[in-house]
Amino acid sequence: MQTIQTYHDAFVTYLNTFVKPKEPKALYEPIHYILQLGGKRLRPILTLMTAEIFECDFEKAMDAALSVEVFHNFSLVHDDIMDAAPLRRGQDTVHTKWDVNTAILSGDAMLIMAYQLFENYKPDTFRGLAKLFSKTALEVCEGQQYDVDFETRDDVSIAEYLKMIEFKTAVLVGAAMKMGAIVAEASEACQEAIYDFGKNLGIAFQLQDDYLDAFGDPSTFGKQVGGDIIENKKTFLYIKAIEFSNTSDRRQLEHLYGVNPTDNYDKIEAIKQLFVSSGAAEATKQEIYAYTEKAFSVLDQLKISETSKSALRQFGNDLMKRDV
Amino acid sequence: MQTIQTYHDAFVTYLNTFVKPKEPKALYEPIHYILQLGGKRLRPILTLMTAEIFECDFEKAMDAALSVEVFHNFSLVHDDIMDAAPLRRGQDTVHTKWDVNTAILSGDAMLIMAYQLFENYKPDTFRGLAKLFSKTALEVCEGQQYDVDFETRDDVSIAEYLKMIEFKTAVLVGAAMKMGAIVAEASEACQEAIYDFGKNLGIAFQLQDDYLDAFGDPSTFGKQVGGDIIENKKTFLYIKAIEFSNTSDRRQLEHLYGVNPTDNYDKIEAIKQLFVSSGAAEATKQEIYAYTEKAFSVLDQLKISETSKSALRQFGNDLMKRDV
Repeated sequence: MQTIQTYHDAFVTYLNTFVKPKEPKALYEPIHYILQLGGKRLRPILTLMTAEIFECDFEKAMDAALSVEVFHNFSLVHDDIMDAAPLRRGQDTVHTKWDVNTAILSGDAMLIMAYQLFENYKPDTFRGLAKLFSKTALEVCEGQQYDVDFETRDDVSIAEYLKMIEFKTAVLVGAAMKMGAIVAEASEACQEAIYDFGKNLGIAFQLQDDYLDAFGDPSTFGKQVGGDIIENKKTFLYIKAIEFSNTSDRRQLEHLYGVNPTDNYDKIEAIKQLFVSSGAAEATKQEIYAYTEKAFSVLDQLKISETSKSALRQFGNDLMKRDV
Repeated sequence: MQTIQTYHDAFVTYLNTFVKPKEPKALYEPIHYILQLGGKRLRPILTLMTAEIFECDFEKAMDAALSVEVFHNFSLVHDDIMDAAPLRRGQDTVHTKWDVNTAILSGDAMLIMAYQLFENYKPDTFRGLAKLFSKTALEVCEGQQYDVDFETRDDVSIAEYLKMIEFKTAVLVGAAMKMGAIVAEASEACQEAIYDFGKNLGIAFQLQDDYLDAFGDPSTFGKQVGGDIIENKKTFLYIKAIEFSNTSDRRQLEHLYGVNPTDNYDKIEAIKQLFVSSGAAEATKQEIYAYTEKAFSVLDQLKISETSKSALRQFGNDLMKRDV
């Protein structure tokens, strides 16, 4: 096992060799731009790490890791158009720096390139990777659609919300790890187990993102604290608070989610208080804990070294230990 | 060999079984809408026909044929956004009937579904189909980008224009046929030959589309005659006319391509006259003939029955015999 930093650096080096000037420039330059904007590269690191856990040289999983990262960035480019987001990682989004048409077409090309990155694997591995990739990619599209649908619905259940974040975010984490296992030719049972580990950790991670958006430390949380509240986004916290509240509190919450004041300070504070008093904040923390434990419980079934298990546990804990 | 109508009807029946209500509706309904808008289904018919030419039951090529059609429709959905086109086959485009975000996301899902349609083939066939598909799909994106780039350039050469239509249109015709050959497990040499047949016929077809846009019979040409001229589109005819003209005619042509009159009749007539007097019209007809012959010459190398060869020749002639 290597350190996370080693995987990260090896991956970025490989990514940089992939990013070579190519014609037509107007198609490929936006692709190279978004791929080189940075980011934590968590998904490809997980692919490389998983390959090694199943006793395969992590270098062999490099193309699969790059495919996951190219797909992730494809989804960012298209999602940013849909969200009309001006910034990504503090820089212009592709449709802002170029235009919407460029962002559509360059995104399409990225989705295709993600499949091409499997072509150096032998036929069986290629098929396994491509099948998993297609299933996952389609779920990510479905998750994005559910997220859009939920904006105009008042009756989203906790089960529906969990399915949405599972599809939109968590399945790609599971798939990133399973791809490492496929390249390493791990058994089907191991492939499924590591997929579940990644998926459950992904759900925990997204729920924590919801939690930290309201209760995170502004100095360590990467985004604007209260951003979801300002946008009236129906997160896990909100849905739980509605579920737990009495009629009067529920009305207040719904009222607050209907206003868009110039100064959001009072709105944010009032909503946070309702999140706490209703028990939604505590319920969210418990849910995060439950999904993290569910992820870790999978490890017991895995026939991998104790070192590998503790590395995965460590990775999970590091990921979840953003100042809650 | 079946008749074109038989392939067409079998394909449409299969397509209709593929189009089943699925959640989330907002993602899948636009996909089913565009797939059922009709069209000639030329590409999937070519896939089925080619499979039979290489002595394989055409039913086996049905998933590959459907993949080609799903991909073709994906490219229409995204291209229609980029062109801000309100209509497709006389009906609302997806981004008009729904919205741009829906058209982006549903298109993305179609591209993924096109890959999934290869999953019932065995690993070697799957890999062959997916590799060809990725290469072709990326070329289609590049062709689309060149087409966009050419709008703002005055110095597009004939070679560049031919490469653009090859990528944007012709490679998918070649790939549709090659997929039939891959499913039929034809030899590499046969696969390449049938690809070249389709690609050259595709180029001839697109050049004829350019020609008919100016000189076609309004009663049989599917689109508005003169549409390219109204949009000042630099087609093969225009580039050839610029190349062949003396300074004064070239200036007149460039001038006419800079104006957008309310009534386009005089503009269209003047440009058509320049296309003829410069020799560009005749040169285009010769180029169409040359690419059609190039396609047919490939048939001599193919070890297939004489019946099959004459069926392909017939198909090519039928395709090209739109009232020139």
